[in-house]
Amino acid sequence: MKDQDTFKLHAQHTGKITINSAVRIKSKEDLALIYTPGVAQVSSAIKNDPSLAEKYTIAGKTVAVISDGSAVLGLGNIGAKAALPVMEGKCVIFKELGGIDAFPLCLDEQSPKEIISTIKSLAPNFVAINLEDIAAPKCFEIEETLQNELSIPIMHDDQHATAIVTLAALKGALYVTKKKSIVIAIVGVGAAGIATAKLLLDQCKGLNIKEIRLIDSKGLVSTDRTDLNSYKKDLAQKTSQHKTMDLSEALKKIDVFIGVSKGDLLTKEMVLAMNSAPIIFAMANPTPEIMPQDALAAGASIVGTGRSDFPNQINNALVYPGIFKGLIKYRIKKVTTEIKIAAANAIFEYHKKNLSENNILPSILDKKIPEVIASALG
Amino acid sequence: MKDQDTFKLHAQHTGKITINSAVRIKSKEDLALIYTPGVAQVSSAIKNDPSLAEKYTIAGKTVAVISDGSAVLGLGNIGAKAALPVMEGKCVIFKELGGIDAFPLCLDEQSPKEIISTIKSLAPNFVAINLEDIAAPKCFEIEETLQNELSIPIMHDDQHATAIVTLAALKGALYVTKKKSIVIAIVGVGAAGIATAKLLLDQCKGLNIKEIRLIDSKGLVSTDRTDLNSYKKDLAQKTSQHKTMDLSEALKKIDVFIGVSKGDLLTKEMVLAMNSAPIIFAMANPTPEIMPQDALAAGASIVGTGRSDFPNQINNALVYPGIFKGLIKYRIKKVTTEIKIAAANAIFEYHKKNLSENNILPSILDKKIPEVIASALG
Repeated sequence: MKDQDTFKLHAQHTGKITINSAVRIKSKEDLALIYTPGVAQVSSAIKNDPSLAEKYTIAGKTVAVISDGSAVLGLGNIGAKAALPVMEGKCVIFKELGGIDAFPLCLDEQSPKEIISTIKSLAPNFVAINLEDIAAPKCFEIEETLQNELSIPIMHDDQHATAIVTLAALKGALYVTKKKSIVIAIVGVGAAGIATAKLLLDQCKGLNIKEIRLIDSKGLVSTDRTDLNSYKKDLAQKTSQHKTMDLSEALKKIDVFIGVSKGDLLTKEMVLAMNSAPIIFAMANPTPEIMPQDALAAGASIVGTGRSDFPNQINNALVYPGIFKGLIKYRIKKVTTEIKIAAANAIFEYHKKNLSENNILPSILDKKIPEVIASALG
Repeated sequence: MKDQDTFKLHAQHTGKITINSAVRIKSKEDLALIYTPGVAQVSSAIKNDPSLAEKYTIAGKTVAVISDGSAVLGLGNIGAKAALPVMEGKCVIFKELGGIDAFPLCLDEQSPKEIISTIKSLAPNFVAINLEDIAAPKCFEIEETLQNELSIPIMHDDQHATAIVTLAALKGALYVTKKKSIVIAIVGVGAAGIATAKLLLDQCKGLNIKEIRLIDSKGLVSTDRTDLNSYKKDLAQKTSQHKTMDLSEALKKIDVFIGVSKGDLLTKEMVLAMNSAPIIFAMANPTPEIMPQDALAAGASIVGTGRSDFPNQINNALVYPGIFKGLIKYRIKKVTTEIKIAAANAIFEYHKKNLSENNILPSILDKKIPEVIASALG
């Protein structure tokens, strides 16, 4: 892949999605049905029974992909306009892989209160809302408030879809390597890291997890730190971490590295200091925490990244078309722990017969996956 | 047309528009260009130069059709969900007739301040904003504030496109009937009525207009009334109306009736009390102020309505695809009086050779019209 290819592709159609008419206007009669006077009948019917909007308008099928551009890929707070190509990419995946109409909306505002108010105002147009690339901790408040105040499904992809795909990948990798009594380090304690930690804490017994360590830019998230927000403080307690450690200390003698942080953070030396043949999920995008060849050279048994151009792609794009298909189908407002486990298990079971070091997850391109996941939610 | 046809059409595809991917995902390489890692290059480039969003994202081609549902057709304040079929219809017309991608957003809020704030937050996703079916007088404040504070073209369709199409229709009708020294009554003094009055006031000399009367639900808009908002007060002055009159009085001895009010308001008796062979534009939707056959039976020379199923359709749908094509092409932020006159003249001149009592305007279905109008803006 060359840089100019991606720019060319983005310029060819001025962005990556198009809005089309589902109906043709060939005559005045067509116009009278689509527009005035016919449309007034439909509007009046919806005014009398708002639930009919699901049947007669795009609000019955369209997912909004909404971001404030505050935590885009590993690029950070790049703002609304710069976030748009990523949100369009999400919409392409929704349509091409999941058959779901999705429209990107990048909001030019950063306060949780304003974002919540704008999304509430936009909700009547959509069947579900996919929050995307919104920084922690505001993403938690925004998602929770909207779930309480709106009647349609809402999911913050970076939290829940990432947690699900990571759990599915971990199940696959543990099945292949037969590792037991494992120590896991999660590096990056934003939306994805926190949601993944919570889900893995719930799965300690089933996956034979002995210890979980969360590591942010200041080191191990532990109860002796005074700089933690309430979400991290809670996780320090739940992971029973009480001692200050820096990154390289905290990565010693671990079996599984889960990186949702930033590029080039993990060195070969750090991998060599882990337990033997560690599992490395270097999921930062676009630059992974360590390049796969370096991790393998340092003794890793299995390496996954978020990228499309390496084996073992661990990317929430495998998950969100199916999750939204299920949320919409069963009118589920909130992605619970049970839903996440069911989705991860469905992916793992579906792929079980194909599992190997270089194939711990189904391909994102496998068009059966959305239905496999959606069915697990019912 | 039967009611069930319009409901069937709206249900067939769950609404009238679809969102499609402009690019295919057939391989991991495709995914790497469209999504991660390729997309990060495009996002970074836009972060460094936000103007590149026009080239690489849908913000370079997509018009937002935004309403708060407060003045939808002749149905009134029906709210966001019920307004959606109308906004989708607008988007269908944008695409089918003008080749422009447009997306409907109905906002679930009514205060001008909140609407302005929401639209400002949404602006980075769009190349232009079409405000639609927002009640007067708040529509004036919303449009003006956004024009001052945003860098993209913004037009409130109900004001300007309606004024343009009415002027074009009037020019056609006067050309056919050869009427001179005319008295015009505009019934309905909301967004459309006010904008039309302002444009016709500017055209009094050219069109040989002797008098303009504006009539709202309380009667003639005149300086002796104490219940007028500032917009109406200003127009009472400018039209030099100083005496209280009720509707039927104010319609006596007029030559042109322009209705942008509500259905079944104009009786045969009122038409009979006008000057001989009056021109009747009964543009309320879906039910006109008077049905064409009744107006003709009472002696009208030319009758136009907003509807697709009668001759002489006077509907802003003839105008807005072309206006937006021009606004986008020439990056014009505001539709001025000069632009409105240029657009109306372009329509009139284009149609001149075809003008007759039952054919005062080109067909909305004429696909050359958007280009004819757009070119006039340059």
